Amino acid sequence: MSMMSKSDMKELLGERAAMVEDFLRSCLNDIAAPPRLKEAMLYSLLAGGKRLRPVLCLTCASMCGGAVEIVLPFACAIEMIHTYSLIHDDLPAMDNDDLRRGKPSNHKAFDEATAILAGDALLTDSFAVMCRTRVSADRLVRAMATIASAAGAAGMAGGQQMDMEHTGGPPITFESLQRMHAMKTGALIRASCVCGAVLAGGDEIVLKAVDDFAAAFGMAFQITDDILDITSDTTTLGKPVRSDVDKGKNTYPFLLGLERSREFAHEQVAASKAALSDFSGKDAEFLSALAAHIIHRTF
Amino acid sequence: MSMMSKSDMKELLGERAAMVEDFLRSCLNDIAAPPRLKEAMLYSLLAGGKRLRPVLCLTCASMCGGAVEIVLPFACAIEMIHTYSLIHDDLPAMDNDDLRRGKPSNHKAFDEATAILAGDALLTDSFAVMCRTRVSADRLVRAMATIASAAGAAGMAGGQQMDMEHTGGPPITFESLQRMHAMKTGALIRASCVCGAVLAGGDEIVLKAVDDFAAAFGMAFQITDDILDITSDTTTLGKPVRSDVDKGKNTYPFLLGLERSREFAHEQVAASKAALSDFSGKDAEFLSALAAHIIHRTF
Repeated sequence: MSMMSKSDMKELLGERAAMVEDFLRSCLNDIAAPPRLKEAMLYSLLAGGKRLRPVLCLTCASMCGGAVEIVLPFACAIEMIHTYSLIHDDLPAMDNDDLRRGKPSNHKAFDEATAILAGDALLTDSFAVMCRTRVSADRLVRAMATIASAAGAAGMAGGQQMDMEHTGGPPITFESLQRMHAMKTGALIRASCVCGAVLAGGDEIVLKAVDDFAAAFGMAFQITDDILDITSDTTTLGKPVRSDVDKGKNTYPFLLGLERSREFAHEQVAASKAALSDFSGKDAEFLSALAAHIIHRTF
Repeated sequence: MSMMSKSDMKELLGERAAMVEDFLRSCLNDIAAPPRLKEAMLYSLLAGGKRLRPVLCLTCASMCGGAVEIVLPFACAIEMIHTYSLIHDDLPAMDNDDLRRGKPSNHKAFDEATAILAGDALLTDSFAVMCRTRVSADRLVRAMATIASAAGAAGMAGGQQMDMEHTGGPPITFESLQRMHAMKTGALIRASCVCGAVLAGGDEIVLKAVDDFAAAFGMAFQITDDILDITSDTTTLGKPVRSDVDKGKNTYPFLLGLERSREFAHEQVAASKAALSDFSGKDAEFLSALAAHIIHRTF
Protein backbone atom coordinates (compact mmCIF):
# COMPACT_ATOMS: atom_id res chain seq x y z
CA MET A 1 0.00 0.00 0.00
CA SER A 2 1.37 3.43 -0.87
CA MET A 3 1.69 5.78 2.09
CA MET A 4 -0.46 8.90 2.46
CA SER A 5 1.53 11.98 3.49
CA LYS A 6 0.97 13.36 6.95
CA SER A 7 -0.46 16.60 5.55
CA ASP A 8 -2.90 14.77 3.26
CA MET A 9 -3.94 12.61 6.21
CA LYS A 10 -4.53 15.68 8.37
CA GLU A 11 -6.49 17.38 5.61
CA LEU A 12 -8.86 14.43 5.19
CA LEU A 13 -9.17 14.07 8.96
CA GLY A 14 -10.08 17.76 9.25
CA GLU A 15 -12.54 17.54 6.36
CA ARG A 16 -14.40 14.59 7.81
CA ALA A 17 -14.30 15.98 11.36
CA ALA A 18 -15.88 19.20 10.02
CA MET A 19 -18.69 17.17 8.39
CA VAL A 20 -19.29 15.53 11.75
CA GLU A 21 -19.38 18.84 13.64
CA ASP A 22 -21.83 20.39 11.21
CA PHE A 23 -24.18 17.43 11.39
CA LEU A 24 -23.95 17.21 15.20
CA ARG A 25 -24.86 20.89 15.52
CA SER A 26 -27.89 20.58 13.23
CA CYS A 27 -28.99 17.35 14.98
CA LEU A 28 -28.98 18.90 18.40
CA ASN A 29 -30.79 21.98 17.17
CA ASP A 30 -33.63 19.71 15.99
CA ILE A 31 -34.29 18.44 19.52
CA ALA A 32 -36.99 20.28 21.52
CA ALA A 33 -35.12 20.05 24.84
CA PRO A 34 -35.20 22.42 27.84
CA PRO A 35 -32.67 25.21 27.01
CA ARG A 36 -30.21 24.53 29.82
CA LEU A 37 -30.10 20.81 29.06
CA LYS A 38 -29.51 21.48 25.38
CA GLU A 39 -26.80 23.98 26.25
CA ALA A 40 -25.04 21.40 28.45
CA MET A 41 -25.27 18.77 25.70
CA LEU A 42 -23.83 21.15 23.11
CA TYR A 43 -21.14 22.40 25.50
CA SER A 44 -19.49 18.98 25.67
CA LEU A 45 -20.40 17.83 22.18
CA LEU A 46 -18.80 20.85 20.53
CA ALA A 47 -15.82 21.16 22.89
CA GLY A 48 -13.38 20.36 20.11
CA GLY A 49 -12.70 16.65 20.25
CA LYS A 50 -10.67 14.87 17.59
CA ARG A 51 -13.84 13.14 16.23
CA LEU A 52 -11.75 10.00 15.94
CA ARG A 53 -14.60 7.50 16.30
CA PRO A 54 -16.99 9.05 13.75
CA VAL A 55 -14.11 9.59 11.30
CA LEU A 56 -13.14 5.92 11.69
CA CYS A 57 -16.76 4.94 11.06
CA LEU A 58 -17.06 7.13 7.94
CA THR A 59 -13.70 5.96 6.61
CA CYS A 60 -14.35 2.25 7.15
CA ALA A 61 -17.73 2.66 5.43
CA SER A 62 -16.11 4.43 2.49
CA MET A 63 -13.32 1.82 2.32
CA CYS A 64 -16.03 -0.87 2.04
CA GLY A 65 -17.85 0.91 -0.78
CA GLY A 66 -20.32 3.02 1.21
CA ALA A 67 -20.93 6.76 0.87
CA VAL A 68 -19.81 8.92 3.79
CA GLU A 69 -22.89 11.15 3.48
CA ILE A 70 -25.17 8.16 4.01
CA VAL A 71 -23.32 6.89 7.07
CA LEU A 72 -22.94 10.38 8.60
CA PRO A 73 -25.90 10.22 11.07
CA PHE A 74 -24.67 6.92 12.45
CA ALA A 75 -21.09 8.19 12.78
CA CYS A 76 -22.30 11.30 14.61
CA ALA A 77 -24.40 9.18 16.95
CA ILE A 78 -21.20 7.38 17.98
CA GLU A 79 -19.64 10.73 18.90
CA MET A 80 -22.71 11.46 21.04
CA ILE A 81 -22.11 8.17 22.89
CA HIS A 82 -18.43 8.99 23.31
CA THR A 83 -19.30 12.46 24.65
CA TYR A 84 -21.84 11.09 27.15
CA SER A 85 -19.14 8.76 28.49
CA LEU A 86 -16.71 11.65 29.00
CA ILE A 87 -19.32 13.70 30.88
CA HIS A 88 -20.18 10.82 33.22
CA ASP A 89 -16.54 9.76 33.69
CA ASP A 90 -15.69 13.27 34.90
CA LEU A 91 -18.42 13.31 37.60
CA PRO A 92 -17.34 13.69 41.26
CA ALA A 93 -18.48 10.11 42.04
CA MET A 94 -16.36 8.80 39.15
CA ASP A 95 -12.98 10.31 38.15
CA ASN A 96 -13.82 13.72 39.68
CA ASP A 97 -12.09 15.70 36.93
CA ASP A 98 -12.60 19.47 36.84
CA LEU A 99 -11.02 19.98 33.42
CA ARG A 100 -11.71 18.39 30.03
CA ARG A 101 -10.02 19.57 26.83
CA GLY A 102 -8.80 22.68 28.66
CA LYS A 103 -12.30 23.76 29.73
CA PRO A 104 -14.30 23.16 32.92
CA SER A 105 -15.87 19.72 32.79
CA ASN A 106 -19.64 19.59 32.28
CA HIS A 107 -20.65 19.38 35.96
CA LYS A 108 -18.34 22.33 36.73
CA ALA A 109 -19.71 24.47 33.90
CA PHE A 110 -23.33 23.54 34.78
CA ASP A 111 -24.17 21.39 37.81
CA GLU A 112 -24.09 17.72 38.66
CA ALA A 113 -27.77 16.98 37.95
CA THR A 114 -27.57 18.71 34.58
CA ALA A 115 -24.35 16.85 33.72
CA ILE A 116 -25.90 13.48 34.55
CA LEU A 117 -28.96 14.32 32.45
CA ALA A 118 -26.92 15.77 29.57
CA GLY A 119 -25.01 12.47 29.43
CA ASP A 120 -28.21 10.42 29.66
CA ALA A 121 -29.84 12.49 26.93
CA LEU A 122 -26.84 12.32 24.57
CA LEU A 123 -26.76 8.55 24.98
CA THR A 124 -30.50 8.14 24.47
CA ASP A 125 -30.83 10.54 21.57
CA SER A 126 -27.83 8.96 19.85
CA PHE A 127 -30.09 6.00 19.09
CA ALA A 128 -32.73 8.30 17.62
CA VAL A 129 -30.03 9.84 15.42
CA MET A 130 -28.83 6.38 14.31
CA CYS A 131 -32.38 5.63 13.16
CA ARG A 132 -32.04 8.48 10.65
CA THR A 133 -29.35 6.55 8.72
CA ARG A 134 -30.73 5.84 5.25
CA VAL A 135 -29.44 2.31 4.67
CA SER A 136 -31.48 -0.90 4.61
CA ALA A 137 -33.16 -1.45 7.98
CA ASP A 138 -31.52 -4.89 8.27
CA ARG A 139 -28.03 -3.42 8.13
CA LEU A 140 -29.04 -0.61 10.46
CA VAL A 141 -30.40 -2.98 13.13
CA ARG A 142 -27.23 -5.06 12.99
CA ALA A 143 -25.07 -1.95 13.40
CA MET A 144 -27.22 -0.63 16.25
CA ALA A 145 -26.94 -3.96 18.09
CA THR A 146 -23.16 -3.83 17.63
CA ILE A 147 -22.83 -0.31 19.03
CA ALA A 148 -25.22 -0.90 21.94
CA SER A 149 -23.34 -4.03 23.04
CA ALA A 150 -19.99 -2.29 22.69
CA ALA A 151 -21.10 0.65 24.83
CA GLY A 152 -23.04 -1.35 27.44
CA ALA A 153 -22.27 -3.49 30.48
CA ALA A 154 -20.06 -5.92 28.54
CA GLY A 155 -18.23 -3.03 26.88
CA MET A 156 -17.56 0.61 27.70
CA ALA A 157 -19.73 0.92 30.83
CA GLY A 158 -18.34 -2.37 32.17
CA GLY A 159 -14.77 -1.22 31.49
CA GLN A 160 -15.38 2.00 33.42
CA GLN A 161 -16.77 -0.08 36.30
CA MET A 162 -13.57 -2.20 36.30
CA ASP A 163 -11.46 0.96 36.20
CA MET A 164 -13.37 2.38 39.20
CA GLU A 165 -13.03 -0.82 41.19
CA HIS A 166 -9.28 -1.09 40.62
CA THR A 167 -8.32 2.59 40.97
CA GLY A 168 -6.21 3.08 44.08
CA GLY A 169 -6.12 -0.65 44.75
CA PRO A 170 -3.29 -3.13 44.24
CA PRO A 171 -1.85 -3.32 40.70
CA ILE A 172 -3.82 -5.59 38.38
CA THR A 173 -2.31 -8.16 36.03
CA PHE A 174 -1.37 -7.29 32.46
CA GLU A 175 -4.22 -9.52 31.27
CA SER A 176 -6.75 -7.64 33.42
CA LEU A 177 -5.41 -4.30 32.18
CA GLN A 178 -5.79 -5.49 28.58
CA ARG A 179 -9.33 -6.65 29.25
CA MET A 180 -10.27 -3.44 31.04
CA HIS A 181 -9.01 -1.26 28.20
CA ALA A 182 -10.49 -3.56 25.57
CA MET A 183 -13.86 -2.88 27.20
CA LYS A 184 -13.44 0.74 28.27
CA THR A 185 -12.00 2.26 25.09
CA GLY A 186 -11.38 -0.62 22.67
CA ALA A 187 -14.96 -1.81 22.28
CA LEU A 188 -16.38 1.51 21.04
CA ILE A 189 -13.46 2.10 18.65
CA ARG A 190 -13.86 -1.40 17.22
CA ALA A 191 -17.62 -0.99 16.92
CA SER A 192 -17.17 2.39 15.19
CA CYS A 193 -15.10 0.74 12.47
CA VAL A 194 -17.16 -2.45 12.19
CA CYS A 195 -20.44 -0.49 12.02
CA GLY A 196 -19.06 1.55 9.13
CA ALA A 197 -18.32 -1.69 7.31
CA VAL A 198 -21.70 -3.22 8.25
CA LEU A 199 -23.61 -0.16 7.03
CA ALA A 200 -21.67 -0.28 3.74
CA GLY A 201 -22.64 -3.93 3.29
CA GLY A 202 -19.21 -5.51 3.87
CA ASP A 203 -19.15 -9.32 3.97
CA GLU A 204 -17.91 -11.36 6.94
CA ILE A 205 -14.31 -11.51 5.69
CA VAL A 206 -14.24 -7.73 5.29
CA LEU A 207 -15.81 -7.25 8.73
CA LYS A 208 -13.15 -9.49 10.29
CA ALA A 209 -10.30 -7.50 8.70
CA VAL A 210 -11.83 -4.18 9.78
CA ASP A 211 -12.29 -5.51 13.30
CA ASP A 212 -8.66 -6.69 13.45
CA PHE A 213 -7.50 -3.26 12.29
CA ALA A 214 -9.66 -1.53 14.88
CA ALA A 215 -8.65 -3.76 17.80
CA ALA A 216 -4.95 -3.03 17.23
CA PHE A 217 -5.63 0.65 16.49
CA GLY A 218 -7.62 0.99 19.70
CA MET A 219 -4.88 -0.57 21.76
CA ALA A 220 -2.20 1.68 20.23
CA PHE A 221 -4.46 4.64 21.00
CA GLN A 222 -4.95 3.65 24.64
CA ILE A 223 -1.28 2.91 25.31
CA THR A 224 -0.40 6.33 23.90
CA ASP A 225 -3.08 7.91 26.09
CA ASP A 226 -1.45 6.34 29.13
CA ILE A 227 2.03 7.46 28.01
CA LEU A 228 0.87 11.05 27.42
CA ASP A 229 -0.48 11.22 30.96
CA ILE A 230 3.15 10.96 32.09
CA THR A 231 5.14 12.67 29.35
CA SER A 232 2.93 15.56 28.22
CA ASP A 233 2.20 18.85 29.98
CA THR A 234 -1.11 20.21 31.26
CA THR A 235 -1.54 22.90 28.59
CA THR A 236 -0.98 20.53 25.69
CA LEU A 237 -3.12 17.80 27.22
CA GLY A 238 -6.01 20.07 28.30
CA LYS A 239 -6.17 18.33 31.67
CA PRO A 240 -3.73 17.91 34.56
CA VAL A 241 -0.73 15.80 33.58
CA ARG A 242 -0.07 12.69 35.73
CA SER A 243 -3.70 12.72 36.85
CA ASP A 244 -4.01 8.97 36.14
CA VAL A 245 -0.84 8.26 38.11
CA ASP A 246 -1.92 10.47 41.01
CA LYS A 247 -5.29 8.74 41.21
CA GLY A 248 -3.63 5.33 41.42
CA LYS A 249 -5.00 4.22 38.05
CA ASN A 250 -3.68 1.12 36.37
CA THR A 251 -1.88 2.17 33.17
CA TYR A 252 0.47 0.55 30.65
CA PRO A 253 3.59 2.52 31.74
CA PHE A 254 2.77 1.64 35.35
CA LEU A 255 2.73 -2.08 34.55
CA LEU A 256 5.24 -2.32 31.67
CA GLY A 257 7.46 0.73 32.09
CA LEU A 258 7.66 3.61 29.59
CA GLU A 259 10.03 2.01 27.06
CA ARG A 260 8.22 -1.31 26.82
CA SER A 261 4.92 0.58 26.54
CA ARG A 262 6.27 2.55 23.57
CA GLU A 263 7.44 -0.64 21.87
CA PHE A 264 4.07 -2.21 22.52
CA ALA A 265 2.28 0.75 20.92
CA HIS A 266 4.51 0.41 17.83
CA GLU A 267 3.73 -3.30 17.60
CA GLN A 268 0.01 -2.51 17.68
CA VAL A 269 0.36 0.07 14.90
CA ALA A 270 2.16 -2.53 12.79
CA ALA A 271 -0.62 -5.05 13.49
CA SER A 272 -3.30 -2.51 12.55
CA LYS A 273 -1.59 -1.77 9.24
CA ALA A 274 -1.15 -5.46 8.51
CA ALA A 275 -4.89 -6.02 8.96
CA LEU A 276 -5.52 -3.58 6.08
CA SER A 277 -3.36 -5.51 3.60
CA ASP A 278 -6.32 -6.64 1.47
CA PHE A 279 -7.65 -3.10 1.07
CA SER A 280 -6.40 -0.41 -1.28
CA GLY A 281 -7.29 3.16 -2.14
CA LYS A 282 -7.45 6.46 -0.34
CA ASP A 283 -9.40 5.32 2.71
CA ALA A 284 -7.09 2.41 3.52
CA GLU A 285 -4.07 4.67 3.07
CA PHE A 286 -5.69 7.23 5.36
CA LEU A 287 -6.35 4.65 8.10
CA SER A 288 -2.79 3.42 7.83
CA ALA A 289 -1.39 6.95 8.12
CA LEU A 290 -3.77 7.71 10.99
CA ALA A 291 -2.56 4.64 12.89
CA ALA A 292 1.07 5.72 12.44
CA HIS A 293 0.18 9.24 13.56
CA ILE A 294 -1.83 8.24 16.62
CA ILE A 295 1.23 7.16 18.61
CA HIS A 296 3.13 10.35 17.80
CA ARG A 297 0.34 12.71 18.81
CA THR A 298 0.79 15.06 21.74
CA PHE A 299 -2.80 15.23 23.00
CA MET B 1 -67.15 -2.71 25.16
CA SER B 2 -67.87 -5.27 27.87
CA MET B 3 -65.97 -4.73 31.11
CA MET B 4 -63.26 -7.09 32.32
CA SER B 5 -63.59 -7.95 36.02
CA LYS B 6 -60.95 -6.62 38.38
CA SER B 7 -59.74 -10.13 39.20
CA ASP B 8 -59.42 -11.10 35.52
CA MET B 9 -57.54 -7.86 34.91
CA LYS B 10 -55.17 -8.55 37.79
CA GLU B 11 -54.62 -12.11 36.60
CA LEU B 12 -53.64 -11.02 33.09
CA LEU B 13 -51.48 -8.22 34.50
CA GLY B 14 -49.69 -10.74 36.72
CA GLU B 15 -49.26 -13.22 33.87
CA ARG B 16 -47.70 -10.67 31.53
CA ALA B 17 -45.58 -9.13 34.29
CA ALA B 18 -44.21 -12.62 35.03
CA MET B 19 -43.28 -13.08 31.34
CA VAL B 20 -41.42 -9.78 31.51
CA GLU B 21 -39.54 -10.72 34.70
CA ASP B 22 -38.44 -14.07 33.29
CA PHE B 23 -37.17 -12.53 30.09
CA LEU B 24 -35.40 -9.69 31.90
CA ARG B 25 -33.58 -12.16 34.15
CA SER B 26 -32.41 -14.29 31.20
CA CYS B 27 -31.39 -11.19 29.22
CA LEU B 28 -29.20 -9.83 31.97
CA ASN B 29 -27.61 -13.21 32.55
CA ASP B 30 -26.51 -13.22 28.90
CA ILE B 31 -24.40 -10.06 29.38
CA ALA B 32 -20.70 -10.58 30.20
CA ALA B 33 -20.51 -7.66 32.63
CA PRO B 34 -18.29 -7.18 35.70
CA PRO B 35 -20.08 -9.01 38.57
CA ARG B 36 -20.75 -5.98 40.76
CA LEU B 37 -22.16 -3.98 37.85
CA LYS B 38 -24.44 -6.84 36.84
CA GLU B 39 -25.56 -7.25 40.46
CA ALA B 40 -26.45 -3.55 40.65
CA MET B 41 -28.38 -3.75 37.36
CA LEU B 42 -30.33 -6.80 38.53
CA TYR B 43 -30.92 -5.30 41.98
CA SER B 44 -33.03 -2.48 40.55
CA LEU B 45 -34.42 -4.36 37.58
CA LEU B 46 -35.86 -7.14 39.73
CA ALA B 47 -36.95 -4.96 42.66
CA GLY B 48 -40.60 -5.76 42.03
CA GLY B 49 -41.99 -2.96 39.89
CA LYS B 50 -45.50 -3.12 38.43
CA ARG B 51 -44.06 -3.70 34.91
CA LEU B 52 -46.69 -1.28 33.68
CA ARG B 53 -44.80 -0.04 30.60
CA PRO B 54 -43.84 -3.46 29.17
CA VAL B 55 -47.33 -4.80 29.89
CA LEU B 56 -48.83 -1.83 28.04
CA CYS B 57 -46.46 -2.52 25.13
CA LEU B 58 -47.34 -6.22 24.98
CA THR B 59 -51.05 -5.53 25.31
CA CYS B 60 -51.16 -2.83 22.64
CA ALA B 61 -49.24 -5.14 20.31
CA SER B 62 -51.66 -7.97 20.96
CA MET B 63 -54.65 -5.64 20.55
CA CYS B 64 -53.27 -4.69 17.11
CA GLY B 65 -52.86 -8.30 16.02
CA GLY B 66 -49.27 -8.96 17.13
CA ALA B 67 -48.03 -11.87 19.25
CA VAL B 68 -46.87 -11.01 22.77
CA GLU B 69 -43.97 -13.50 22.55
CA ILE B 70 -42.57 -11.69 19.51
CA VAL B 71 -42.76 -8.24 21.10
CA LEU B 72 -41.40 -9.43 24.47
CA PRO B 73 -37.75 -8.34 23.99
CA PHE B 74 -38.82 -4.84 23.02
CA ALA B 75 -41.23 -4.59 25.95
CA CYS B 76 -38.51 -5.70 28.36
CA ALA B 77 -36.09 -3.17 26.91
CA ILE B 78 -38.59 -0.45 27.85
CA GLU B 79 -38.55 -1.68 31.45
CA MET B 80 -34.74 -1.44 31.37
CA ILE B 81 -35.06 2.21 30.29
CA HIS B 82 -37.62 2.88 33.01
CA THR B 83 -35.34 1.26 35.62
CA TYR B 84 -32.30 3.28 34.53
CA SER B 85 -34.36 6.46 34.98
CA LEU B 86 -35.36 5.47 38.53
CA ILE B 87 -31.72 4.76 39.49
CA HIS B 88 -30.49 8.10 38.16
CA ASP B 89 -33.47 10.06 39.57
CA ASP B 90 -32.64 8.75 43.07
CA LEU B 91 -28.98 9.92 42.95
CA PRO B 92 -27.82 12.47 45.55
CA ALA B 93 -27.38 15.14 42.84
CA MET B 94 -30.95 14.55 41.64
CA ASP B 95 -33.87 13.68 44.01
CA ASN B 96 -31.52 12.25 46.68
CA ASP B 97 -33.88 9.41 47.64
CA ASP B 98 -32.59 6.68 49.95
CA LEU B 99 -35.56 4.37 49.48
CA ARG B 100 -37.18 2.90 46.39
CA ARG B 101 -39.94 0.29 46.52
CA GLY B 102 -39.20 -0.23 50.22
CA LYS B 103 -35.52 -1.06 49.64
CA PRO B 104 -32.36 1.06 49.73
CA SER B 105 -32.01 2.90 46.44
CA ASN B 106 -29.24 1.68 44.11
CA HIS B 107 -26.54 4.14 45.20
CA LYS B 108 -27.28 3.27 48.85
CA ALA B 109 -27.13 -0.49 48.25
CA PHE B 110 -23.95 -0.14 46.12
CA ASP B 111 -22.22 3.20 45.64
CA GLU B 112 -22.73 6.28 43.54
CA ALA B 113 -20.31 5.37 40.73
CA THR B 114 -21.82 1.90 40.41
CA ALA B 115 -25.35 3.35 40.40
CA ILE B 116 -24.49 5.83 37.64
CA LEU B 117 -22.92 3.04 35.57
CA ALA B 118 -25.73 0.56 36.27
CA GLY B 119 -28.16 3.16 34.92
CA ASP B 120 -25.97 3.90 31.92
CA ALA B 121 -25.58 0.20 31.16
CA LEU B 122 -29.30 -0.58 31.50
CA LEU B 123 -30.08 2.26 29.11
CA THR B 124 -27.42 1.25 26.59
CA ASP B 125 -28.10 -2.47 26.69
CA SER B 126 -31.83 -1.85 26.35
CA PHE B 127 -31.13 -0.96 22.72
CA ALA B 128 -29.19 -4.19 22.21
CA VAL B 129 -32.18 -6.08 23.65
CA MET B 130 -34.59 -4.22 21.33
CA CYS B 131 -32.51 -5.39 18.37
CA ARG B 132 -33.41 -8.98 19.30
CA THR B 133 -37.09 -8.36 18.47
CA ARG B 134 -37.99 -10.63 15.55
CA VAL B 135 -40.20 -8.34 13.50
CA SER B 136 -39.39 -6.74 10.17
CA ALA B 137 -36.38 -4.44 10.52
CA ASP B 138 -38.40 -1.51 9.14
CA ARG B 139 -40.95 -1.72 11.94
CA LEU B 140 -38.19 -2.24 14.48
CA VAL B 141 -36.28 0.87 13.41
CA ARG B 142 -39.44 2.96 13.58
CA ALA B 143 -40.19 1.67 17.09
CA MET B 144 -36.60 2.25 18.25
CA ALA B 145 -36.68 5.83 16.97
CA THR B 146 -39.96 6.37 18.84
CA ILE B 147 -38.62 5.04 22.14
CA ALA B 148 -35.29 6.89 21.87
CA SER B 149 -37.00 10.23 21.21
CA ALA B 150 -39.48 9.64 24.04
CA ALA B 151 -36.71 8.89 26.53
CA GLY B 152 -34.25 11.56 25.37
CA ALA B 153 -33.80 15.31 25.76
CA ALA B 154 -37.22 16.14 24.29
CA GLY B 155 -38.88 13.49 26.47
CA MET B 156 -38.09 11.79 29.77
CA ALA B 157 -34.59 13.21 30.34
CA GLY B 158 -35.81 16.71 29.44
CA GLY B 159 -38.78 16.34 31.80
CA GLN B 160 -36.47 15.37 34.65
CA GLN B 161 -34.34 18.43 33.88
CA MET B 162 -37.45 20.67 34.09
CA ASP B 163 -38.43 18.98 37.34
CA MET B 164 -34.96 19.64 38.80
CA GLU B 165 -34.97 23.27 37.69
CA HIS B 166 -38.39 23.99 39.23
CA THR B 167 -38.07 21.99 42.46
CA GLY B 168 -38.01 24.34 45.43
CA GLY B 169 -38.64 27.35 43.20
CA PRO B 170 -41.83 29.37 42.71
CA PRO B 171 -44.92 27.39 41.61
CA ILE B 172 -45.11 26.81 37.87
CA THR B 173 -48.21 27.28 35.74
CA PHE B 174 -50.65 24.45 35.12
CA GLU B 175 -49.51 24.41 31.47
CA SER B 176 -45.85 24.02 32.51
CA LEU B 177 -46.78 21.23 34.94
CA GLN B 178 -48.66 19.44 32.16
CA ARG B 179 -45.72 19.81 29.80
CA MET B 180 -43.21 18.65 32.41
CA HIS B 181 -45.20 15.51 33.23
CA ALA B 182 -45.97 14.85 29.57
CA MET B 183 -42.21 14.69 29.04
CA LYS B 184 -41.08 13.11 32.30
CA THR B 185 -43.56 10.21 32.58
CA GLY B 186 -46.06 10.63 29.73
CA ALA B 187 -43.65 10.28 26.82
CA LEU B 188 -42.34 6.82 27.79
CA ILE B 189 -45.83 5.50 28.58
CA ARG B 190 -47.12 6.76 25.24
CA ALA B 191 -44.14 5.34 23.39
CA SER B 192 -44.58 1.97 25.15
CA CYS B 193 -48.10 1.71 23.77
CA VAL B 194 -47.35 3.15 20.34
CA CYS B 195 -44.32 0.89 19.87
CA GLY B 196 -46.45 -2.15 20.63
CA ALA B 197 -48.83 -1.04 17.87
CA VAL B 198 -45.96 -0.20 15.47
CA LEU B 199 -44.30 -3.60 16.02
CA ALA B 200 -47.64 -5.31 15.36
CA GLY B 201 -48.01 -3.42 12.09
CA GLY B 202 -50.85 -1.08 13.08
CA ASP B 203 -51.80 1.55 10.50
CA GLU B 204 -51.73 5.30 11.17
CA ILE B 205 -55.36 5.43 12.36
CA VAL B 206 -54.69 2.63 14.84
CA LEU B 207 -51.48 4.31 16.02
CA LYS B 208 -53.37 7.57 16.62
CA ALA B 209 -56.03 5.83 18.74
CA VAL B 210 -53.39 3.96 20.76
CA ASP B 211 -51.49 7.19 21.31
CA ASP B 212 -54.66 8.99 22.46
CA PHE B 213 -55.36 6.18 24.91
CA ALA B 214 -51.81 6.27 26.23
CA ALA B 215 -51.62 10.05 26.63
CA ALA B 216 -54.74 10.10 28.81
CA PHE B 217 -53.68 6.94 30.66
CA GLY B 218 -50.27 8.42 31.40
CA MET B 219 -51.78 11.61 32.76
CA ALA B 220 -54.22 9.70 35.01
CA PHE B 221 -51.25 7.68 36.25
CA GLN B 222 -49.16 10.75 37.06
CA ILE B 223 -51.97 12.63 38.81
CA THR B 224 -52.59 9.55 40.98
CA ASP B 225 -48.86 9.34 41.72
CA ASP B 226 -48.95 12.93 42.95
CA ILE B 227 -52.09 12.26 45.04
CA LEU B 228 -50.57 9.14 46.63
CA ASP B 229 -47.54 11.16 47.74
CA ILE B 230 -49.96 13.02 50.03
CA THR B 231 -52.61 10.46 50.94
CA SER B 232 -50.71 7.17 51.24
CA ASP B 233 -48.37 5.99 53.99
CA THR B 234 -44.67 5.15 53.83
CA THR B 235 -45.07 1.36 54.18
CA THR B 236 -47.64 1.08 51.40
CA LEU B 237 -45.78 3.47 49.12
CA GLY B 238 -42.31 1.96 49.69
CA LYS B 239 -40.81 5.44 50.03
CA PRO B 240 -41.36 8.34 52.42
CA VAL B 241 -44.83 9.83 52.08
CA ARG B 242 -45.01 13.58 51.32
CA SER B 243 -41.47 13.44 49.94
CA ASP B 244 -42.53 15.40 46.84
CA VAL B 245 -44.23 18.03 48.97
CA ASP B 246 -41.26 18.28 51.34
CA LYS B 247 -38.85 18.76 48.44
CA GLY B 248 -40.94 21.60 47.06
CA LYS B 249 -41.87 19.68 43.90
CA ASN B 250 -44.60 20.91 41.63
CA THR B 251 -47.50 18.44 41.78
CA TYR B 252 -51.14 18.35 40.67
CA PRO B 253 -52.59 18.58 44.23
CA PHE B 254 -50.24 21.48 44.94
CA LEU B 255 -51.55 23.41 41.92
CA LEU B 256 -55.17 22.20 41.71
CA GLY B 257 -55.98 20.98 45.21
CA LEU B 258 -56.77 17.37 46.09
CA GLU B 259 -60.42 17.29 45.02
CA ARG B 260 -59.91 18.90 41.62
CA SER B 261 -56.91 16.59 41.06
CA ARG B 262 -59.08 13.54 41.71
CA GLU B 263 -61.73 14.81 39.29
CA PHE B 264 -59.05 15.48 36.72
CA ALA B 265 -57.72 11.92 37.06
CA HIS B 266 -61.25 10.56 36.52
CA GLU B 267 -61.65 12.71 33.41
CA GLN B 268 -58.39 11.30 32.02
CA VAL B 269 -59.52 7.72 32.65
CA ALA B 270 -62.74 8.45 30.77
CA ALA B 271 -60.73 9.93 27.90
CA SER B 272 -58.43 6.91 27.78
CA LYS B 273 -61.39 4.53 27.60
CA ALA B 274 -63.05 6.63 24.90
CA ALA B 275 -59.92 6.38 22.77
CA LEU B 276 -60.34 2.58 22.73
CA SER B 277 -63.88 2.69 21.32
CA ASP B 278 -62.88 1.23 17.95
CA PHE B 279 -61.13 -1.77 19.52
CA SER B 280 -62.75 -4.90 20.90
CA GLY B 281 -61.58 -8.13 22.52
CA LYS B 282 -59.68 -9.14 25.60
CA ASP B 283 -56.77 -6.74 25.24
CA ALA B 284 -58.94 -3.65 24.82
CA GLU B 285 -61.06 -4.71 27.79
CA PHE B 286 -57.91 -5.26 29.81
CA LEU B 287 -56.57 -1.79 28.99
CA SER B 288 -59.90 -0.25 29.89
CA ALA B 289 -60.00 -2.08 33.23
CA LEU B 290 -56.36 -1.19 33.90
CA ALA B 291 -57.09 2.50 33.32
CA ALA B 292 -60.00 2.37 35.76
CA HIS B 293 -57.81 0.57 38.29
CA ILE B 294 -54.82 2.86 38.01
CA ILE B 295 -56.49 5.75 39.85
CA HIS B 296 -57.67 3.49 42.69
CA ARG B 297 -54.29 1.93 43.34
CA THR B 298 -52.51 2.48 46.64
CA PHE B 299 -48.87 2.38 45.46
